[in-house]
Amino acid sequence: MNALVILGHPRPGSFNHAIAATVVETLHANGYDVVFHDLCAEGFEPLLPSGELPEDGAVDPVVRQHCAELVAADVFVVVHPNWWGQPPAILKGWLDRVVRQGVAYEFGPGGAVIGHFQGKKAVVFTTSNTPRDVEISVFHDPLENLWMNVVFRFCGVEDPYRRNFE
Amino acid sequence: MNALVILGHPRPGSFNHAIAATVVETLHANGYDVVFHDLCAEGFEPLLPSGELPEDGAVDPVVRQHCAELVAADVFVVVHPNWWGQPPAILKGWLDRVVRQGVAYEFGPGGAVIGHFQGKKAVVFTTSNTPRDVEISVFHDPLENLWMNVVFRFCGVEDPYRRNFE
Repeated sequence: MNALVILGHPRPGSFNHAIAATVVETLHANGYDVVFHDLCAEGFEPLLPSGELPEDGAVDPVVRQHCAELVAADVFVVVHPNWWGQPPAILKGWLDRVVRQGVAYEFGPGGAVIGHFQGKKAVVFTTSNTPRDVEISVFHDPLENLWMNVVFRFCGVEDPYRRNFE
Repeated sequence: MNALVILGHPRPGSFNHAIAATVVETLHANGYDVVFHDLCAEGFEPLLPSGELPEDGAVDPVVRQHCAELVAADVFVVVHPNWWGQPPAILKGWLDRVVRQGVAYEFGPGGAVIGHFQGKKAVVFTTSNTPRDVEISVFHDPLENLWMNVVFRFCGVEDPYRRNFE
């Protein structure tokens, strides 16, 4: 089984890094083949150039490699801090560029969404300095909706899971 | 009166560019001093380096200039497409880096948020290829919550406004 672990935090030694390291170690211990990307450490380029916008546009080789890993993965694990109810820009850029139409999903007859992540699993770990009850009651827990609903269910993951650490 | 207009779309000639141009023209016609940033055209760097994380961290001069414009503005206008229920990475990075603690908001006694945008106005124009009813019923219109609630009301704007074009 293949696991793809994506970390989006700029400070080596952060709590996010510790979570990602534990995830990778646990997946190895359970026999997974793991691909791990510390996006900041790797200098992942988050800006989608306009040439990549069309489904058949020319896609950068690094992004093509990320797309191939997305297709090969049985399990996705995403780790990041809550910045404005969203992931940091580097991870937003990974989403913009890698989770492409034609790779992660496509539109069928009548515009129906066909998710290509069917049968895959997804786990999201987030960290936050907002008290959990405030995050839910005042801000409506945007990361829960964004990752579970807008991204992973949209792409066909049946039962994505998220845990927040505050 | 000062207006700050921020555009986050990578393709010159896009509908988003047309919206932003109309916004700038209309503000000028109404006597505003306008600062306009086409973030992609300017090559705005969206990645918050870890040194900028602390409130008293060393802040890049370009970001410092953006922060000064934020403080000087009476009106903010933000224009961008809906990508995954969020702004494109370049605009997410502007949010991460420019809308800083100490500039846009601070925490008072007991952790109470003090928004520094009190008395300012905010307008957000978004574009989307998802039918409006689906965006609301299936995806819960994430951009409405993110911009109106998580960003602008959090920073003290009393009555922010958004319009989506589909």
